[in-house]
Amino acid sequence: MDYRKESLRLHGEWKGKIEVIHKVPVSTKEELSLAYTPGVAEPCLAIQKDVNLSYEYTRRWNLVAVITDGTAVLGLGDIGPEAGMPVMEGKCVLFKKFGDVDAFPLCIKSKDVDEIVKTIKLISGSFGGINLEDISAPRCFEIERRLKEECDIPIFHDDQHGTAVVTVAAMINALKLVNKKIEDIEVVVNGSGAAGIAVTRLLMSMGLKKVILCDTKGAIYDGRDNLNSEKALIAKISNLEKKKGTLEDVIKGADVFIGLSVPGTVTKDMVKSMAKDPIIFAMANPTPEIMPDEAKEAGAKVVGTGRSDFPNQINNVLAFPGIFRGALDVRARDINDEMKIAAAKAIASLVSDEELNPDFILPLPFDPRVGKTVAAAVAEAARKTGVARI
Amino acid sequence: MDYRKESLRLHGEWKGKIEVIHKVPVSTKEELSLAYTPGVAEPCLAIQKDVNLSYEYTRRWNLVAVITDGTAVLGLGDIGPEAGMPVMEGKCVLFKKFGDVDAFPLCIKSKDVDEIVKTIKLISGSFGGINLEDISAPRCFEIERRLKEECDIPIFHDDQHGTAVVTVAAMINALKLVNKKIEDIEVVVNGSGAAGIAVTRLLMSMGLKKVILCDTKGAIYDGRDNLNSEKALIAKISNLEKKKGTLEDVIKGADVFIGLSVPGTVTKDMVKSMAKDPIIFAMANPTPEIMPDEAKEAGAKVVGTGRSDFPNQINNVLAFPGIFRGALDVRARDINDEMKIAAAKAIASLVSDEELNPDFILPLPFDPRVGKTVAAAVAEAARKTGVARI
Repeated sequence: MDYRKESLRLHGEWKGKIEVIHKVPVSTKEELSLAYTPGVAEPCLAIQKDVNLSYEYTRRWNLVAVITDGTAVLGLGDIGPEAGMPVMEGKCVLFKKFGDVDAFPLCIKSKDVDEIVKTIKLISGSFGGINLEDISAPRCFEIERRLKEECDIPIFHDDQHGTAVVTVAAMINALKLVNKKIEDIEVVVNGSGAAGIAVTRLLMSMGLKKVILCDTKGAIYDGRDNLNSEKALIAKISNLEKKKGTLEDVIKGADVFIGLSVPGTVTKDMVKSMAKDPIIFAMANPTPEIMPDEAKEAGAKVVGTGRSDFPNQINNVLAFPGIFRGALDVRARDINDEMKIAAAKAIASLVSDEELNPDFILPLPFDPRVGKTVAAAVAEAARKTGVARI
Repeated sequence: MDYRKESLRLHGEWKGKIEVIHKVPVSTKEELSLAYTPGVAEPCLAIQKDVNLSYEYTRRWNLVAVITDGTAVLGLGDIGPEAGMPVMEGKCVLFKKFGDVDAFPLCIKSKDVDEIVKTIKLISGSFGGINLEDISAPRCFEIERRLKEECDIPIFHDDQHGTAVVTVAAMINALKLVNKKIEDIEVVVNGSGAAGIAVTRLLMSMGLKKVILCDTKGAIYDGRDNLNSEKALIAKISNLEKKKGTLEDVIKGADVFIGLSVPGTVTKDMVKSMAKDPIIFAMANPTPEIMPDEAKEAGAKVVGTGRSDFPNQINNVLAFPGIFRGALDVRARDINDEMKIAAAKAIASLVSDEELNPDFILPLPFDPRVGKTVAAAVAEAARKTGVARI
């Protein structure tokens, strides 16, 4: 099937993938007096006295905004706010289906960081959480950081953290298969946009010590030219040996390659140059940095991609619905690293030791256990780290 | 029943009166590829080429944001953004029930006009229309005026225009009963906030010439002290004889009293001082400016209130669902006076000459013909005035 052509036809037929419905009766005078005036004055006054009651008397407890500015939509780039909305609506569908979260799509007609931050902050009282989506790097880092400081609800840029959580989950199980420990391995991350940097940070908070990020100019190290502020920051804590050179140079001897870059950047020879039992997560879309069969021929022990037609799909849908479900369930004021790591471990735990093999390191996206298991782990981590409000 | 107590209990049970659901299947790999990646790239690219296609490929065509800053909620005043949300959700329920419009509630955590205008403008690409709600006067006038200039979708402050449309509808039928023409009558409007000024303006665009607005300091006339900018503007076109004095002074000889003020401001003696067959629309909530039985004893021919337990309820729900339905159906870029007048006439037309009597001048809020009849009239007026895009 030509998915894109058929998808266009279906989108024209669907005319929207979400709908806002009403859950209460308003067919009689009495019902109207209870759901609306004059009765509604009472929950209003209750919330005025204690704003936390907005989680009891309105839908806020279950509402997440999925927000983009349209600057980095899929692999399509800066296509504009309205053009990003089919993706945002799709995300909302996944939130509901896999996390029973009411998600609502919004696009912001501005590329200005200050304007975006202020807009989201000013509407944040309407929601229990904010999922940022498809905002270009490095702007996405500042937008998220400032919103986390200024808002009292979870702010989660899924392109960063959803990807990081699922990659860490895949790593946990892949390392079991090659019998290596995260403290000991050497990882090369190609692509230092939102996802590459977030994956690196989360792996480091799991214990990873040796990691080198690359961009199109090669290895990133402290002091290199042409580093934006985010790359400069990550350069201070990664590649401590200050290795220089191309991806081809620095991948030599590495245990793991993580690609969040562009198709075809890894060759069989490069895989052959890695340490014993290499792990390859080649997540470029739609075509991986190296195709799984090539990687395996070159000696890769475990290969994951972003695609559903190969084994080991590293797909954010395993993470974000359960993460927000868990955060909303305990009315978390933040989604912190401990909650992300708990989510990654929960995802990894759903592959039993008996099931675990090089072609099966992650549960399938449609595994009904995933959302609930992740939610429970995230809620527990939120309680332990003091960000849960109930 | 104690509506407020029971409403509080029910709101706690409902935990939100709206829900966001998904309308498309995502239970298999194929379905996911069509509703989300990779298929979704195609409608995105189509919208990038022609932003109007966002009305074809996303829910935008049917989406209205119901937005407040919480500064003038019901009769409760400035109770804060989150505390206004039970009302906004209730409004969304009515939009869906009576207009089949997907309405989504948002509150803005700011009282600054510039910030509110900018926030709404920046998210306007997500919606087909914006319904402003419960924003205090005179800020509401500037916010609406600027948004109408800066956005290409309908902006409608319901507290002004919804009230105006239904009041005009009531007036059309009440005047038939007393056999008077709008060009000839004298109207006194007590209360010169958002609703009072909007009602006055819409009646004037229907042909009313003699009208006096009052505030707590009495009749408003050009040059009076203590007029805010909006009152100063309306003073230039109303009360051309520059009558001065209290409500009691200026109501003498008037044909119609319209109250959008506070309970108990009109006495039987004041009604007795009016012209023959006085019409009284006493819409203060929850208690009218004068109770209907008192007004009738004093000689009022037709009495309307905001309440459902008296005849002739002048209720915005007769207007806004159909007005937005009609505007959305033709993808209107504005809701103009012609569309509002068409809505008022459509509402009035649903009371047949046989049915029309002093206790029945408006259709009931639950009359299933209302939404569709109003929508059709509004769509036609939008086409005639060139604001329809399809």
